[in-house]
Amino acid sequence: MLVLSSPSGAGKTTLSRMLLEVESGLEMSVSVTTRPMRPGEVDGEDYIFVAQEEFNAMRDEGELLEWAVVFDNFYGTPKGPIDKALGEGRDVLFDIDWQGAESLTKTAKKDLVTVFILPPSAQALETRLSDRAQDSAEVVARRMAGASNEIQHWDQYDYIVINEDVEQSLLELRAILAAERLKKTRRTGLGDFVRQIQSKL
Amino acid sequence: MLVLSSPSGAGKTTLSRMLLEVESGLEMSVSVTTRPMRPGEVDGEDYIFVAQEEFNAMRDEGELLEWAVVFDNFYGTPKGPIDKALGEGRDVLFDIDWQGAESLTKTAKKDLVTVFILPPSAQALETRLSDRAQDSAEVVARRMAGASNEIQHWDQYDYIVINEDVEQSLLELRAILAAERLKKTRRTGLGDFVRQIQSKL
Repeated sequence: MLVLSSPSGAGKTTLSRMLLEVESGLEMSVSVTTRPMRPGEVDGEDYIFVAQEEFNAMRDEGELLEWAVVFDNFYGTPKGPIDKALGEGRDVLFDIDWQGAESLTKTAKKDLVTVFILPPSAQALETRLSDRAQDSAEVVARRMAGASNEIQHWDQYDYIVINEDVEQSLLELRAILAAERLKKTRRTGLGDFVRQIQSKL
Repeated sequence: MLVLSSPSGAGKTTLSRMLLEVESGLEMSVSVTTRPMRPGEVDGEDYIFVAQEEFNAMRDEGELLEWAVVFDNFYGTPKGPIDKALGEGRDVLFDIDWQGAESLTKTAKKDLVTVFILPPSAQALETRLSDRAQDSAEVVARRMAGASNEIQHWDQYDYIVINEDVEQSLLELRAILAAERLKKTRRTGLGDFVRQIQSKL
């Protein structure tokens, strides 16, 4: 379970898409949300868009691994698809905020790898947030405040990537994924492999 | 501090050389040893070859980070060059056995990343050991027994690389190095960087 968090505008969504494209064996965890769909978003791909009552039902029936409220909207991570992927030996990517990451850490610390993506500068962040023409000035301002809040949780993460250049950042994320897969603690079945070698020496 | 260990014949020395060639900012820790120089070895490069009395003096004066006896020969890691490299922001590669790795773990756990290199099969190991024409049959047999002993310590390491293909193994080692450098705990000075961004938001 690979978690990416960052303030809005640091490039997390772009990086997630690029990573999923090049990494087989990695699939996205699609969150459920009560927030309205934005132009260009696809239901079931960017988010699973649900009404508040539906969200509450999922939460109350224990179908969410974690959930949180951000800017009055509810966000949650459905459990079913994750259990299925992990059970079949695939890894799961989470594009969630620090609250979601913190909740996941409590539920699944051993399986979790967390990465915080930082912008190269405050100005880069401002530029990227203002470029989202679809958002009103008020929304941009609110997101700037949110970014400042999000960014202060950077040191709760395992790895830090400074997204100055997306290609370089993609390489760094792939290195993290490759290295984590080589960790002894994740290499189940290697004990048998070693015993087999030893028996023949 | 990146430690590579493996049974003889698993390709550790070749991989170390390749890694040093492509990774700037990484330098080799050259061990001191009392064992005789082999044909083709260079004093000060492969090992620092010393007499027993010289080794004892270094050890007694606290100039060795760790030391061990393997096949009646003494091996040790000089402290000075490592302190210098780390102080100047470079990383240090150690080509040492499980005893050395265990000693280093006790001295410098926080700074240490340990990798065990496994052969793809017992047969691959045997072939590589027999191919070292310079060694007598007796030495080969003794090294096979040593390999069996070394290999049983595989699970004391952070990462495991199965060296089926050296190019693939090199990529894996580079991924481990890249990922470890991105760890929050190693990114000193990032707190100031983040505070600077926040102050401008």
